[in-house]
Amino acid sequence: MTYVHGYDTRENERLEDQAGTLVDLLHSDTAYPPGSTVLEVGCGVGAQTLTLARRSPDAGFTSIDVSAASIAEARQKIDGTGLTNVEFQQADIFALPFDAESFDHVFVCFVLEHLSRPLQALAILKGVLRPGGTITVIEGDHGSAYFYPDSSAAQAAIDCLVELQRRAGGNALIGRQVFPLLVEAGFEAVRVSPRMVYVDSSRPELVDGFTRKTFTAMVEGIREPAIAAGLTDPERFDAGVRDLYRTTERDGVFCYTFFKGVARK
Amino acid sequence: MTYVHGYDTRENERLEDQAGTLVDLLHSDTAYPPGSTVLEVGCGVGAQTLTLARRSPDAGFTSIDVSAASIAEARQKIDGTGLTNVEFQQADIFALPFDAESFDHVFVCFVLEHLSRPLQALAILKGVLRPGGTITVIEGDHGSAYFYPDSSAAQAAIDCLVELQRRAGGNALIGRQVFPLLVEAGFEAVRVSPRMVYVDSSRPELVDGFTRKTFTAMVEGIREPAIAAGLTDPERFDAGVRDLYRTTERDGVFCYTFFKGVARK
Repeated sequence: MTYVHGYDTRENERLEDQAGTLVDLLHSDTAYPPGSTVLEVGCGVGAQTLTLARRSPDAGFTSIDVSAASIAEARQKIDGTGLTNVEFQQADIFALPFDAESFDHVFVCFVLEHLSRPLQALAILKGVLRPGGTITVIEGDHGSAYFYPDSSAAQAAIDCLVELQRRAGGNALIGRQVFPLLVEAGFEAVRVSPRMVYVDSSRPELVDGFTRKTFTAMVEGIREPAIAAGLTDPERFDAGVRDLYRTTERDGVFCYTFFKGVARK
Repeated sequence: MTYVHGYDTRENERLEDQAGTLVDLLHSDTAYPPGSTVLEVGCGVGAQTLTLARRSPDAGFTSIDVSAASIAEARQKIDGTGLTNVEFQQADIFALPFDAESFDHVFVCFVLEHLSRPLQALAILKGVLRPGGTITVIEGDHGSAYFYPDSSAAQAAIDCLVELQRRAGGNALIGRQVFPLLVEAGFEAVRVSPRMVYVDSSRPELVDGFTRKTFTAMVEGIREPAIAAGLTDPERFDAGVRDLYRTTERDGVFCYTFFKGVARK
């Protein structure tokens, strides 16, 4: 798997900004009972891990990621907080080193979008989940982005990101598929709720934290690969990014939606 | 102004289905104090009027529409309920028969999308609103529609509706502009909240009431004018409608967002 956003420092800062802005919207209704065991899949640099572990201080988390470098950084981040309820482990979602039905809950955030076989991944996760346990899946959907002023150049820049992710085997439009994927994987009581981020200039913290530093920064981050892949040219791509920044002005509006699904085995 | 959806019986049924399904999502946070006077602009056949008058039984509503036929139907609808706090009047938003600053509140729902000069309309409404009074604006945005399975034919059918509305002088993408329009019209304390309709098969009442009977019925309703205008051909349009219905199956998902703005003079 190629992680389309790369692993450099700026990307890590972007993930932290994103996590900071969106924590309440995405995670405020996730808490695990004392003593329960939770597998966090694809923890990356630990942006969500920190939130999870703080919100459920008496649950035990096992957080895995395929990247050793990300695991090292996540471990460092948690070590600095005094939290003791997280164990990190480098592991591949398609080759999990855990016994069947060994976790009470599974948590998967911003992971399925990068997988070419998300349904198979869910089936594997179902295997390590005990009967009656829950799975939580959170994904974005880049097709949910629209804005004012509208701009075909900005849409084209976003489309570059969608296409790069597709070529890397992923699916940047997977948010709308969280429901059918969980149903198809055989989970019960599937309930999906959209988490829409609505940004206008009356919400300056979102203008900065989401439109600028999360979404537009993410699009900017694929400038070189998009040009190298022949999906765009510098002039058109930069015009699209400028138009995304244009939506952060006083009369601008930006909309994006995440989808959170919770289901039971 | 040409009302793009027409005035026939089926359209009226569609508006009633729509109002029934969406009442809580759109209106549950709208209530006016006893004794206050409210101007409802573009009441149509009274779908929203009924909800407004029931939720604020001690406020007095003046509900206007440019169509005498719609006013007659709205009056009949309210007469059947025993509500006595609504007066209907045929009137044009651009030639209001009211004194300056004569209403405590103004309510405008699904109206600005049909006007070629929405900003001027807001300025006129500001004129009849007393200082300190509120305006509430609710609009949809057809650019907020996305679904699973995705379909270019379905998107093209929706685009026909957007284009017809544009040619009729309106703007089917106006929802995202509620904030900038209210700010530009000089209102204070503008606060816009999105009202997203998320539909999957775990919510059968929305599958039927929204995806089928509201949104897809609306798109189907412009089949003849869209073909007559050369925007599509029967085969392609019908394929798009079929694909919209496809989203109502067990694994389908449909998303649409309304925008509700409240501001003060």
